[in-house]
Amino acid sequence: MDMWKQDLKRIQPVSSKWFGVAHERWDSLTKPKKSLGMLEEIAARVVAIREEELPESLGKEVFVFAGDHGVVSEGTSPYPQEVTGLMVRNFLQGGAGINILARCAGAGVTIVDIGMKDELPDINGLVRRNVRRGTRNMAEGPAMTLKETEAAIDTGVEMAEEAFSRGALMVATGEMGIGNTTPSAALFSALLPAAVEDVTGRGTGLDDDGLRRKAAVIARALEVNSRAMGDPLSALSAVGGLEIAGICGLCIGGAARRMMVVVDGFISTAAALVAMRLNPDIRDYLFFSHKSSEKGHGVFFKKEGIRPILDLGLRLGEGTGAVLGMQIIENSLKLYREMATFEEMGITPGA
Amino acid sequence: MDMWKQDLKRIQPVSSKWFGVAHERWDSLTKPKKSLGMLEEIAARVVAIREEELPESLGKEVFVFAGDHGVVSEGTSPYPQEVTGLMVRNFLQGGAGINILARCAGAGVTIVDIGMKDELPDINGLVRRNVRRGTRNMAEGPAMTLKETEAAIDTGVEMAEEAFSRGALMVATGEMGIGNTTPSAALFSALLPAAVEDVTGRGTGLDDDGLRRKAAVIARALEVNSRAMGDPLSALSAVGGLEIAGICGLCIGGAARRMMVVVDGFISTAAALVAMRLNPDIRDYLFFSHKSSEKGHGVFFKKEGIRPILDLGLRLGEGTGAVLGMQIIENSLKLYREMATFEEMGITPGA
Repeated sequence: MDMWKQDLKRIQPVSSKWFGVAHERWDSLTKPKKSLGMLEEIAARVVAIREEELPESLGKEVFVFAGDHGVVSEGTSPYPQEVTGLMVRNFLQGGAGINILARCAGAGVTIVDIGMKDELPDINGLVRRNVRRGTRNMAEGPAMTLKETEAAIDTGVEMAEEAFSRGALMVATGEMGIGNTTPSAALFSALLPAAVEDVTGRGTGLDDDGLRRKAAVIARALEVNSRAMGDPLSALSAVGGLEIAGICGLCIGGAARRMMVVVDGFISTAAALVAMRLNPDIRDYLFFSHKSSEKGHGVFFKKEGIRPILDLGLRLGEGTGAVLGMQIIENSLKLYREMATFEEMGITPGA
Repeated sequence: MDMWKQDLKRIQPVSSKWFGVAHERWDSLTKPKKSLGMLEEIAARVVAIREEELPESLGKEVFVFAGDHGVVSEGTSPYPQEVTGLMVRNFLQGGAGINILARCAGAGVTIVDIGMKDELPDINGLVRRNVRRGTRNMAEGPAMTLKETEAAIDTGVEMAEEAFSRGALMVATGEMGIGNTTPSAALFSALLPAAVEDVTGRGTGLDDDGLRRKAAVIARALEVNSRAMGDPLSALSAVGGLEIAGICGLCIGGAARRMMVVVDGFISTAAALVAMRLNPDIRDYLFFSHKSSEKGHGVFFKKEGIRPILDLGLRLGEGTGAVLGMQIIENSLKLYREMATFEEMGITPGA
């Protein structure tokens, strides 16, 4: 039950020496210096994480953690909770957005029931790690016990270990859980920190009344659980969710194994923020794939001084933005490895 | 010699009816409405261009037009003109950025000598359509005659026709030409219009003195050629370039054949702007792949109210951003075609 604590201690910051190695190679390639912009930074970070000058193509997997949320009883989502289970069936049948984009990216997809309310007995391929059948209502008390939270984090660590043992070096985060922008906003508010209104958005499509109600529920949850806000783990227990804890574990387990962790949108970023607050060195291993259109995601990037790779107005979740981001990372590595050098071309760099 | 004029007349605006068809399908797919953001808009435009509800995967080609510029004698580029020829050799040997990324995108690459100064006699695979061996110095008079300009535009149209006849429905623009941010900035200044300083950037790496010199040269070229600035064709002749005219022709020929034209960075966008000024309906067929870090590219997007797909700080040219953009377009089409519908999943859309 404390895999995650051991992994958290193993995480090392990446060394600037390897960034230097990577940038020296970039500058030897047949292009004006720095002209590939962010692609150069991305590949340099892969070099620094992997500590090899020419990293091979990376095995890729996306993990979609599914969980439900007691707080939806407060009317914070326009979709009924049953949709979590229906969408998980869709994932397992290969018809959801994440399935299509993962095929484009050449990434394997694993669906993990970490906290779904409904049990799906008749479906093959689902990884069953249900910690509890949905969280408690965070507006009335802690969403999870510390024990439940740690079990969910450990599940994420376990998934990182399994991917690693299968040869993957790049993992993407994904999630499904009706109502999960609500706990995510609460975590942003507590851990960035930020005003509740600045990080509370319309999720899958709330109207103005719904948005006000959601912000009030989040404010109440933070008030009711105010004594838990002192450290990241108890904040996650109090106002987080099981799939969020799972993603937090995937970040920890990935960073401990020197894997690239590609973070999806608003909910995944809330989980990554918990991980970053548990150990700031984790940041070196995280690739924030895109800026979601959910209000509040931009606040995170601004406060943390991070630039996301894509900005396509996505707000689907599931890991969809992350597997798009994986393709950009793969492209940047291919350029870095395969472009001809000036020396090979007999050109003297002019600038 | 007037293929391009005939094609220009054939271009039709796309019909809003087909956008409606596409958005109806998007709303039937298993995701919250509009939650795929820009990806939904991209695929909807492909549907409207192709006028079919479920367009097939698109054959993809990138055309790299190479040309030289007399204006480099004014010291507007830190690289010597010979680099155009050296880089074209690199393209033909498969070692440049565009080769690597085109492989990632599954796009064919065609290199066209449309106006290189150096003749490359010993290389297979180069499409030889040299109109003249580099333009004249635009700071002293028109860079090209109208006849030369039209021949270069026709070459672009011809390339669109060849790609179409090979089954491609998506073409990307690319270019190589030492010094070609200078004529591009002049065209932006003349046709947006915009102040010279607002659209003049550092290109491949000018210092502050070089930047001031470059802006002064552009201002002089616009002054010397002021009588040509009244229409897009004569402006292109006076302060453009042969590869820019070729890309303009590719935009015209592509739009006339209802192909998707994916526009690369600063130079390609200047060529696309000429095409848009020749016939505003062309805009419906253009996909602006990315915002370059070259100063002035953002001015174009703001003035024209266009949002580029990517913003990665690229400034390499060659078509590199365009083939990255092609991958995003392909991903959006795959989602649109392959995602399960709510009906198939037995889910009633909630919002």
